[in-house]
Amino acid sequence: MDKVVASPDDAVADIPDGATLAITGFGRWHRFPRSLTAAIADKGVKDLEIACLVLDPANGSRGGYGLVANGQVRKLIAAFASRAGERSAVDEKIYSGELAVEMVSMGVLVERLRAGGSKIPAFYTRTGVGTELAEGKEIREFDGEEYVLEKALHVDYAFLQAWRADRSGNVQFRGASLNINPVCAKAARVAIVEVQEIVEVGEIAPEDVDLPGIYVDRIVLSTVPVTSGPRAPVLPRRDASTGKSYLGKQALTRSEMAQWTAAILKPGYVNLGAGLPTLVSNYIDGRDVVMHSENGLMGYGRVIASAGRGDTPGVDEDLYNASGNYVAINDGAAFFDTVEAFAMARSGKVNTIILGAFQVDEEGNLANWKSPQMAAGGIGGAMDLAAADTELIILVEQLARDGSSKLMKQCTFPLTARRCVDVIVTDTAVFRWHGERFALERLAPGFTVDDVRQITDMAFDVSPDLVATPA
Amino acid sequence: MDKVVASPDDAVADIPDGATLAITGFGRWHRFPRSLTAAIADKGVKDLEIACLVLDPANGSRGGYGLVANGQVRKLIAAFASRAGERSAVDEKIYSGELAVEMVSMGVLVERLRAGGSKIPAFYTRTGVGTELAEGKEIREFDGEEYVLEKALHVDYAFLQAWRADRSGNVQFRGASLNINPVCAKAARVAIVEVQEIVEVGEIAPEDVDLPGIYVDRIVLSTVPVTSGPRAPVLPRRDASTGKSYLGKQALTRSEMAQWTAAILKPGYVNLGAGLPTLVSNYIDGRDVVMHSENGLMGYGRVIASAGRGDTPGVDEDLYNASGNYVAINDGAAFFDTVEAFAMARSGKVNTIILGAFQVDEEGNLANWKSPQMAAGGIGGAMDLAAADTELIILVEQLARDGSSKLMKQCTFPLTARRCVDVIVTDTAVFRWHGERFALERLAPGFTVDDVRQITDMAFDVSPDLVATPA
Repeated sequence: MDKVVASPDDAVADIPDGATLAITGFGRWHRFPRSLTAAIADKGVKDLEIACLVLDPANGSRGGYGLVANGQVRKLIAAFASRAGERSAVDEKIYSGELAVEMVSMGVLVERLRAGGSKIPAFYTRTGVGTELAEGKEIREFDGEEYVLEKALHVDYAFLQAWRADRSGNVQFRGASLNINPVCAKAARVAIVEVQEIVEVGEIAPEDVDLPGIYVDRIVLSTVPVTSGPRAPVLPRRDASTGKSYLGKQALTRSEMAQWTAAILKPGYVNLGAGLPTLVSNYIDGRDVVMHSENGLMGYGRVIASAGRGDTPGVDEDLYNASGNYVAINDGAAFFDTVEAFAMARSGKVNTIILGAFQVDEEGNLANWKSPQMAAGGIGGAMDLAAADTELIILVEQLARDGSSKLMKQCTFPLTARRCVDVIVTDTAVFRWHGERFALERLAPGFTVDDVRQITDMAFDVSPDLVATPA
Repeated sequence: MDKVVASPDDAVADIPDGATLAITGFGRWHRFPRSLTAAIADKGVKDLEIACLVLDPANGSRGGYGLVANGQVRKLIAAFASRAGERSAVDEKIYSGELAVEMVSMGVLVERLRAGGSKIPAFYTRTGVGTELAEGKEIREFDGEEYVLEKALHVDYAFLQAWRADRSGNVQFRGASLNINPVCAKAARVAIVEVQEIVEVGEIAPEDVDLPGIYVDRIVLSTVPVTSGPRAPVLPRRDASTGKSYLGKQALTRSEMAQWTAAILKPGYVNLGAGLPTLVSNYIDGRDVVMHSENGLMGYGRVIASAGRGDTPGVDEDLYNASGNYVAINDGAAFFDTVEAFAMARSGKVNTIILGAFQVDEEGNLANWKSPQMAAGGIGGAMDLAAADTELIILVEQLARDGSSKLMKQCTFPLTARRCVDVIVTDTAVFRWHGERFALERLAPGFTVDDVRQITDMAFDVSPDLVATPA
């Protein structure tokens, strides 16, 4: 069975208008199947339904956003469709009514694809309970807890990008780049894999095969580079050494917030969400804390370079965390895929999850995936992580840019999960859930309880063990 | 996090009476966690509920059957509990009412454990529809097909046996010996792994970790040998070069039946059930046929030695098929676990499945897991395989030992699946399903249509393309 085809154009030649398509790729830079996407852009296939984590922002009209901008996409099923502070081709097409979007949490997306690839028509999950993503879906109680019924997701074709394959379709990935690749192949009627290298059958040892050939229909060499050197502009981010000021006082810097969070971590396995939480892995050296990432990586360490800076010396482009940042790998690390990564989190085997937030409220509800400025939102894996049986720490600056408190009486943005937050670390304070309310348990240098009350809308108690640090 | 404990006794010290326990091991010889089983036998823990594929028949009162014989087990959840032609300690305890047994198909068992390990409380599957295993369970239709609701299976402890682990709990398996080990760890509150070698953290590369340490709580060196040299008596089996006689005529030998089956295989991925089907892999050299096995192996070739003959020269004890036979590995082979193996089969990616049978009937129903002589039955993975969207070939001798036809008007034994059989290869004929009935399409040398009618209870048509071979 020789599955090698001559070119990306040949590989996609039979894809008709109206096809459903899973396209892999992680974050904004990692292993998008650019040659195959370019081939369907050139071919001009229309009315596509695309399932993905996120569309490839690079490669112009031949990239993922390009397909949408070209008007080739009817529907998008994605974990990220909009980003705060951006208005993309996707947003424009949503507002104009030309593009339908179904938002899914990353863990639900991959589990639905897994179900599609293993003849499980439906399954129950905690993810999404109490949110707008559960609306219209069956809710059922098992052992006193509510779960949502989610349906299998099949696709006609899947596009994957991988390191190498043999001619019979056995695929091997490098580093932490398995991510959603294997599961997309499994859910597809026809899986097409673009690779950097094709080898003879037998050259990949049986124990090194990450995706067995039974799941792969076509293999083709990549013609568009997939490396992540500097290509698209990287959004300016506030430096981690800077912080805000409230009431004329200097709040914690982003780095200090990360240090404070690292300091309260118990030994165990920890997942860091995108944005601010990413910084925490810089402060765990010598601690019995092992970092878990949704792309499929356990045991990473310091951030070597930001997402998109694959040209930084010392970077291995296939070693990155869930935020797409390039990371160092500690001894004892392990690689797996995104399906496994979310199983670990949902099961409660990951001991602590640290996420950012738009809003947290006094009932412990969390909103962190959609603001009124976003056409569709960007969930990532937050909804799965927040629904897990695990300690949840929220890392959030006290006030939003407009001066409103992010710690609210009641969240006004769409919820990520209900009653899920255990600890809030802000740039002025640490709060811990005590069964009915949050209690203030630590103050940033120079801040008083009254200061914090002034910039906090949610009601909170003050812990008898409050630690105040002199200015 | 150093997870190494000093001895198997220490590793099981906290297991209380009444605990639920998953015990790994495959077939009758492969990687049973004998040191841990011996430790709980010695400790005398009682009222255990054990989930496993099959109990370890070796190691006397300190093995799996031993635990049952000792009266330590309250309930068994297993894919094999009885074997045709044997009456074991398990059968005795079932007949005496001291042991409850819940029979599960192998694919359902591992998927229920996977669900248990990933906070999916329930899922739907085709496996078991129309059989006694679906009785009392919710049946629901999706896209016009019926599915059974199966519930997650959690356990308090899991016992695994593996090649090696590092001190932080990362585990590496050899060859095709992953089988149900990873999933049992995931479903357990406490996973205990006995290994042949413990290495320092960092010695197992991240891409070689088969079971990440997050799923593992205790590591201990094996003290009881796990190799599969000749230990227990191997049941005498009829030699493959022999055949039966019917109506005074020599029927096909077992080898010839396997050759005939190989001859009708289309190119693709093929699964062979236990017993007679195993012989088919001896006749596929040079064919575009890739052999799939439920333990987690794609691409095996000839059988080198029977199950239990691990002392045969040329055998690698970790390269075995679903029947436990030691096999050669072809170029392009791949190893994975049993969860993945069944996903491949259920999804229809495996193109052909070849199983043995107790009975097949004229409606295409199959019975191959329980006879009236068996206390509980032995399903293995047959129920999953027969329910898959795949061509199903049944390889069966025409008459049972008592002279009755195995091709019946209506099956009298409990069904494996309804309307599932596509082709029947017997020792006198080949029949193919034509929508409403089977049609005879090939005759063994010397046999006539009338001969076959005399020894066949089911009604059948005769194909216009019937091939008769002169005697």
